[in-house]
Amino acid sequence: MATVALDLLGGDGAPGVVADAVARLTDPAAADASIDLIVVGPAATARDLLAERGVDPGRLRIVDAGRGASMAGNPLTALRAHDDVTVSVAVGLVRAGIADAFVSVGHTGAAVAAAVLGLGRLSGMSRPALAVVVPSLAGPVVLVDAGAAPDATPDVLRQFALAGWAYATSLGVTDPAVGLLSIGSEDGKGDRLRRSAHELLAETLPPLGVRYVGAVEGHDVAVGSQAQVFVTDGFTGNVLLKGIEGAVRWAAQRMGEAYGDPEPARAVLRATGTGDFAGGMLLGVNGVTVVGHGAASAVQICACVRLADRAARLGLVPATQRALTSLAGP
Amino acid sequence: MATVALDLLGGDGAPGVVADAVARLTDPAAADASIDLIVVGPAATARDLLAERGVDPGRLRIVDAGRGASMAGNPLTALRAHDDVTVSVAVGLVRAGIADAFVSVGHTGAAVAAAVLGLGRLSGMSRPALAVVVPSLAGPVVLVDAGAAPDATPDVLRQFALAGWAYATSLGVTDPAVGLLSIGSEDGKGDRLRRSAHELLAETLPPLGVRYVGAVEGHDVAVGSQAQVFVTDGFTGNVLLKGIEGAVRWAAQRMGEAYGDPEPARAVLRATGTGDFAGGMLLGVNGVTVVGHGAASAVQICACVRLADRAARLGLVPATQRALTSLAGP
Repeated sequence: MATVALDLLGGDGAPGVVADAVARLTDPAAADASIDLIVVGPAATARDLLAERGVDPGRLRIVDAGRGASMAGNPLTALRAHDDVTVSVAVGLVRAGIADAFVSVGHTGAAVAAAVLGLGRLSGMSRPALAVVVPSLAGPVVLVDAGAAPDATPDVLRQFALAGWAYATSLGVTDPAVGLLSIGSEDGKGDRLRRSAHELLAETLPPLGVRYVGAVEGHDVAVGSQAQVFVTDGFTGNVLLKGIEGAVRWAAQRMGEAYGDPEPARAVLRATGTGDFAGGMLLGVNGVTVVGHGAASAVQICACVRLADRAARLGLVPATQRALTSLAGP
Repeated sequence: MATVALDLLGGDGAPGVVADAVARLTDPAAADASIDLIVVGPAATARDLLAERGVDPGRLRIVDAGRGASMAGNPLTALRAHDDVTVSVAVGLVRAGIADAFVSVGHTGAAVAAAVLGLGRLSGMSRPALAVVVPSLAGPVVLVDAGAAPDATPDVLRQFALAGWAYATSLGVTDPAVGLLSIGSEDGKGDRLRRSAHELLAETLPPLGVRYVGAVEGHDVAVGSQAQVFVTDGFTGNVLLKGIEGAVRWAAQRMGEAYGDPEPARAVLRATGTGDFAGGMLLGVNGVTVVGHGAASAVQICACVRLADRAARLGLVPATQRALTSLAGP
């Protein structure tokens, strides 16, 4: 059993929607009751919201923190100015060993900054990256980075490749193939960053036992047959991930019309947000950190908590550190 | 009526699939019979393929060119070395005023290089861009650049914005809103290129009467409610466009399963490739140039030809030049 610290004040629908998620996760009739939860937020508010939802106070802990992360300005500045911001307090619980993982569906920049400040980076990881599991036609694939580091260098992409490989392996993918997201599989295609990164990855990954398959394209992410780890900068990854989300919304609408019955298509659309796809795993910090979509529903928040719980139990952080360290040699 | 020069040797299924498209386009029973076609390729091959398909030789012209563009190496080098490459010959017909537009579903780099070499760039356009019309839920939207210029600068993105605006306007979109594809609508988000470009677009587009709505996100392209012109570099645009294509394939599979009948979902998927979405319009060269997907079917090649015909009749090139010139002032 892993202990997960959950940010009560993160997300567009917070704190209500987070309290809804807590009610689901602590429902004794649900399988999720095995997760040990710590809710981090204003204690009185938390108690009231949970009581309204009939949550047994004995099924979770509440740690008091009065202030949500600001959506405006530089998140680092705001986090340094106050010691009662929920994301900082939640991360502090992980650092102190009281919790095994931290989950927020609030401002991504604030959650990432709190994790980097509070947990520190793994050795060999200069920029932490958000990894998202996409349920492709061929099975789960990892897209990294989905938005934490908008500007990358070839060496940063190599770090993402190793961390993403460790994540896919932790999730049970055997010998995942690593591809570099680009725009055509011929040599010499892609932008400057990709042309340099391709050479570096081709040279350094195979000696580490990481299967590198070269350039892969945007459509390969949802199809999933060419690679299981898709490496890109956080700008491209975020645009692509949201583009895929928009396209599935488009398809749910158009295909629902084609069948004359919207509901089955909508159910497929909803299901995409309720699995591992709901949360981004922050790779490269010294603790399990899951950042969800600001618009997350209670079901999606539950999915983020389950993902964090699983990663903690599977030892994602030591596995990521081993992959990064292997690059430095024995 | 516009005259369209079509590359017989471009595309994964060339020349057969291109000949199939010609047979459809010249079918007297079809509405497409109004398009005046010139097929550019080895004349004897063209005659044989068209005769096999029962095409009346009086319904089109054939211009002899024996060599397809090479898929390997630098396209410019190959085009300069030979004077009988189909894309160069077809572009030459446009330059000479014999054709009004050029269409190829072959190697994108070769078609773009041939157009730039043979037609020249419009004044004010340093890097031509591929614009694709996406059939979003809210109506047609233009994504520019979809892959011609992988590395861009803020000034190049401004050129793309004006050319994309002119294209959307030519296609009948009234007062199209221009958005900069980014990763979050808050100021200060995005990568370095987007932060600089945002300031430049916000400052220079509104005085020209172009409605600039700031940052838009990946999901907005398929939804279409935030903007009608999505501006980005060719790397991001190509990854996004292919990501959307892959996601729609994903949805067709999963939604077909959910309904227990794959066919209506597949029909929606097929329809996405048979409208304006089938072809990229090369903006910023002095002649109408449409580049389609290498894997294009005959129906998709027909869609590319129709798009070229329409752009020529609507005066896309002078409209694009006016938009670019407006930036230089009266």
